[in-house]
Amino acid sequence: MPDGAILTLNAGSSSLKFAIFANGERPRRLWSGAIERIGLPGARFRLLDACDKVVGVETGTIEDHGTALKRLLLATEHEASGVKLVAVGHRIARPDLTQIACFDTSFHHDLPRIARLSGLPCALQDEGLRRYGFHGLSYEYIVKALRDTGVAVDAERIIVAHLGNGASMCAIRGRKSLETTMGFSTIGGLPMGTKSGDIDPGLLLHLLIDKEMTPKAVSLMLYTESGLFGLSGISRNMQELLQRPDDAATEAVAYFCYHARRHLAGLTAALAGFDRLVFTGGIGANAPQVRAGICDELGYFGIVLNKTANLSGNRVISTGSAGVTVEVRQTDEEAMIAGHVHKLIAGQPMAREA
Amino acid sequence: MPDGAILTLNAGSSSLKFAIFANGERPRRLWSGAIERIGLPGARFRLLDACDKVVGVETGTIEDHGTALKRLLLATEHEASGVKLVAVGHRIARPDLTQIACFDTSFHHDLPRIARLSGLPCALQDEGLRRYGFHGLSYEYIVKALRDTGVAVDAERIIVAHLGNGASMCAIRGRKSLETTMGFSTIGGLPMGTKSGDIDPGLLLHLLIDKEMTPKAVSLMLYTESGLFGLSGISRNMQELLQRPDDAATEAVAYFCYHARRHLAGLTAALAGFDRLVFTGGIGANAPQVRAGICDELGYFGIVLNKTANLSGNRVISTGSAGVTVEVRQTDEEAMIAGHVHKLIAGQPMAREA
Repeated sequence: MPDGAILTLNAGSSSLKFAIFANGERPRRLWSGAIERIGLPGARFRLLDACDKVVGVETGTIEDHGTALKRLLLATEHEASGVKLVAVGHRIARPDLTQIACFDTSFHHDLPRIARLSGLPCALQDEGLRRYGFHGLSYEYIVKALRDTGVAVDAERIIVAHLGNGASMCAIRGRKSLETTMGFSTIGGLPMGTKSGDIDPGLLLHLLIDKEMTPKAVSLMLYTESGLFGLSGISRNMQELLQRPDDAATEAVAYFCYHARRHLAGLTAALAGFDRLVFTGGIGANAPQVRAGICDELGYFGIVLNKTANLSGNRVISTGSAGVTVEVRQTDEEAMIAGHVHKLIAGQPMAREA
Repeated sequence: MPDGAILTLNAGSSSLKFAIFANGERPRRLWSGAIERIGLPGARFRLLDACDKVVGVETGTIEDHGTALKRLLLATEHEASGVKLVAVGHRIARPDLTQIACFDTSFHHDLPRIARLSGLPCALQDEGLRRYGFHGLSYEYIVKALRDTGVAVDAERIIVAHLGNGASMCAIRGRKSLETTMGFSTIGGLPMGTKSGDIDPGLLLHLLIDKEMTPKAVSLMLYTESGLFGLSGISRNMQELLQRPDDAATEAVAYFCYHARRHLAGLTAALAGFDRLVFTGGIGANAPQVRAGICDELGYFGIVLNKTANLSGNRVISTGSAGVTVEVRQTDEEAMIAGHVHKLIAGQPMAREA
């Protein structure tokens, strides 16, 4: 392995996903895995080989991300002895960190100026308090995957719905992001596992001024106690909610699908119509009930699901005569990170700042 | 005048609109007018007669709404001597005031449960921190006016865009509000004269936590220094912005139209399509450039403006073959208030809590 290996890290609030790739023009995945429930009871470490076969599982307590990283490096030394790491690629979900990294915002770099603005005074926008957008690595991967399978990505008006524990949507034309549902932070737009999505700003001011909550308490609530978890009072996990008969669980799922529909419809305004809808992310790829809940009332856009295809895990799940092609695709942010890192260490000019 | 007269009051942040109606089944307007720029330099008082002829104009300084009301009562004593006021109807734009009044939220009373929810924990929603919606008197009036002119308001999917210094949109079917852009407060949804409209909640938390702004300072900014005024740095007044060649003014107008398009498209999801769009409010009724800026890229919904009709002030401004009928109508919240007050003092059962 003359070119060594690339380690990709994708840190969530309580998780650390990773993969090790053989460095090269087309980075080849050697190992992958995740450490989940960091800082929570019952943390779990899983390591998979190149065929996605689980080659190691451990449970226990992992206090923080630093400990998780040490645990990961120890495991790679053991399992991947002889592999020389030559670079590390990170997924960074905060626009103001000063690191050389694969920014999850980069795909939205060419967002039209009007879509970057918020309704705040212009002096603040000039300070960088603008809309950035996230899940860019996922959107970039999906565009690449669409192109690789012969889709006319330069001509089509495409909406990608990245629905996972974090969730956003992106309106894409000419392979560029024209609009997206997340803006400055990762809690805006769609409701998520524990994040609120868009909230009336006057309601937040009411919590702060009339109910005298501290900004930090409001922040904790919006990031960790809202969304599917807050609405259901049960779980942030979509699969768990889908399996429960409770009214509260049903309502949380219905709320998620309703806002996904509204945001999806709203994004068509940035594209002046649309031709293709791609579902991805943990929920988008694995919850046919959610895909149906979003699509079933959008027939007026030309969306018609093939129910059997939707339930069977097909890639195309719309009917042949539908005006909008609806697809389900797995995303691979790690492969995108590895590709960017390879280009950087090979001294090739980088697309944008990644 | 055996039944006496009804005074209607419609207070804005710096204005007090009023009208005096002869009480009766169909309240007849006797006088109307407005006090504008309350608390600002150059306040103005205008009184119009039943034919909308200006019968009095005064300028000067009016410190606050209390002074404005005294000034108004003095004028009515003078101009309308012999008229006995038997009741006063108010437009109230805060859901938590405990008055008997014509709530501007009433029209949204039957908002589907899913549309009332925010993404916050369910315990807070049960406390009343839910989505209410505003401009209900205007929407109610428009539905009545549509019905009076033969529109099939029970069958059509209608979006009303109330665009004024305050602005919102409402998705109406079966004469009921199914969704609206404002929720708990009057600053959410569309950008407005000085109000921000929707803002990423994470951006507000950044202002509070990282920039250490106080909640009151953030509130002042979102209510009075944002929107058209904040973006342009020039004026909150749409007509003034439309007349200026500045890039900043042009951008603020473009931002307004862009978000109106996005919200409009988003509302169609609540109606599963739409048949009729009605523009009203000061901007909606009087700014053909804004109507065109909103409609011109929505052809994929079946919206096609007749440019001449749009510029000429016609009621119907879409082409004959367009799939969506687009109309311009004057609203009359005061007439709606007077109608509700008449029903109340006549002892008739009231529709909803108005």
